[in-house]
Amino acid sequence: MSLGDPAGIGPEVICEAWTRRGEEHLPPFFVVGGVGVLKAAAAQRGLKVPLAIIDHPALALEAFPNALPVLGGPDSEYHPGEPDESGARLALSSLEAAGALVVSGEAGAIVTGPIAKSELAKVGFAFPGQTEFVAAASGVAADDAVMMLAGPQLRTVPLTVHCALSEVSGRISADLICRRATIVDKALRQDFGIAAPRIAICGLNPHAGESGRMGREEIEIIAPAIAALRAAGIEATGPHPADALFTAHARGSYDVAIAMYHDQALIPLKTLDFDQGVNVTLGLPIIRTSPDHGTAFGIAGTGAARPDAMIAAIRMAGEMAERRSGQ
Amino acid sequence: MSLGDPAGIGPEVICEAWTRRGEEHLPPFFVVGGVGVLKAAAAQRGLKVPLAIIDHPALALEAFPNALPVLGGPDSEYHPGEPDESGARLALSSLEAAGALVVSGEAGAIVTGPIAKSELAKVGFAFPGQTEFVAAASGVAADDAVMMLAGPQLRTVPLTVHCALSEVSGRISADLICRRATIVDKALRQDFGIAAPRIAICGLNPHAGESGRMGREEIEIIAPAIAALRAAGIEATGPHPADALFTAHARGSYDVAIAMYHDQALIPLKTLDFDQGVNVTLGLPIIRTSPDHGTAFGIAGTGAARPDAMIAAIRMAGEMAERRSGQ
Repeated sequence: MSLGDPAGIGPEVICEAWTRRGEEHLPPFFVVGGVGVLKAAAAQRGLKVPLAIIDHPALALEAFPNALPVLGGPDSEYHPGEPDESGARLALSSLEAAGALVVSGEAGAIVTGPIAKSELAKVGFAFPGQTEFVAAASGVAADDAVMMLAGPQLRTVPLTVHCALSEVSGRISADLICRRATIVDKALRQDFGIAAPRIAICGLNPHAGESGRMGREEIEIIAPAIAALRAAGIEATGPHPADALFTAHARGSYDVAIAMYHDQALIPLKTLDFDQGVNVTLGLPIIRTSPDHGTAFGIAGTGAARPDAMIAAIRMAGEMAERRSGQ
Repeated sequence: MSLGDPAGIGPEVICEAWTRRGEEHLPPFFVVGGVGVLKAAAAQRGLKVPLAIIDHPALALEAFPNALPVLGGPDSEYHPGEPDESGARLALSSLEAAGALVVSGEAGAIVTGPIAKSELAKVGFAFPGQTEFVAAASGVAADDAVMMLAGPQLRTVPLTVHCALSEVSGRISADLICRRATIVDKALRQDFGIAAPRIAICGLNPHAGESGRMGREEIEIIAPAIAALRAAGIEATGPHPADALFTAHARGSYDVAIAMYHDQALIPLKTLDFDQGVNVTLGLPIIRTSPDHGTAFGIAGTGAARPDAMIAAIRMAGEMAERRSGQ
């Protein structure tokens, strides 16, 4: 587990997750770096969290039941809500070291704590986000690392992510849809144990364009991609009008929805499952999950941050690792 | 109440709403036209709904407790799930006659049953939807008739509606936001009894553009509009990142959210309240509501259609009429 920005809510929700390891049936985990930060964050939150400083990942297994294992290394002071360069450097080195351990196979999965991209950019982080970082670290092209958001009621994949809404139409293509949907299909089988994943694909326009009356992307791009996927044996359906795809009734008809843009994927997920969303990267040789929330500097250190998403991210990483090792 | 397309679920949910008039505390209502359709729809659904043929709206009050009042006039056969021109003509004449009655003041409000725009277009309906029709009928410019979607947990207003997603950026302007938000503010005070409406305004881009990194509409269009609204004494906030605005926690912080485009408004509403959404037109001298669902030809006549949205639309129209008459 990487620490995340030490001024954010990452350290405290990691500590809280460890205290709930029993009732939540969490697999053993360890944090890379930030001993002093974790100790201070636990104290600030009123948690009793003994730390076990380890110098090798394998020692985490034995230590975990009685203490939160921390692989020694860099550290910083704990100033919740006040990000600075020293904290950003700690977040970056924790992420890099944890990434190296999962790529080498010394760790079974990586759960990344929340960072602030703008803070990390100041200390040399050259990626748009942690997803692109873990893709590069594990030798996968950024386009083949697929972000999936998963909550208790819904899984969604945004086809485009961090671009202006006016650029979305120009960025989607049948090739991109097929490439991503194929990765999603494989990952749901391999990592989530779904034998024949049902993939619902959103339209881009209102009412999925209403036969071309409000945009032609459904006709020219999305429908041909779905036809190609189905020809390849993938259970893809659509293009579905996005506003009708996330109702309680519709959610039962698919295992994952592929959305055309950021908010189309994130609005329904956060509307339903704000506190429990997990961001998981599909298509990698390694396993990577993350709580689907940011650093939340505004509430760091106040005790208000909920650990639900971190707990869900840890549990999902453990389940994925178990499925892969069982294969 | 206009009948809606007789091949859709409108007639049957109107009948079901009448049977629940007591337990749901519905105000008295009457339907314009479609006596034979209503009779057949009630029978098909297994409902006992005596009809009272009236020749003047005022007679509905006395008839309503014991029968569903129907203002005589046009009719057609009942072929659920099979729209045809004869049915479209009935839907159109019912809408036109009901619209005339509410404009003349003989009816206190209009609840429009669901139509299929493509079917009505075949028989000469020249409007993009019923909202534009009621605006024109009551002498209001289409731009000043504001569609609001209201469910038990959320109210949203889409700034743009039926246009391709790629056209949204070009269609929003500070002037349009101010004009619409001002209408919304006035309507929530007058028709919904909210003394100082809190209006949350969405960004257009992911994360509301992240200070211009993903689109500049927030900086150039939306933020200036919000500043102007606040200067005018309207409690407008934003631009808010849309994916975070519809969580259970965030929903408590505003009375209505203004979205920049169709799916940004409709996805959260239908995700939460699919069966109970009401479409209400703000800014008119008349009161108009509608269940926020379509004709649902696929399930018409099967008994599967839920009457919740129709019931909510009738109740809301009654409450709005009461507030206006009490002023």
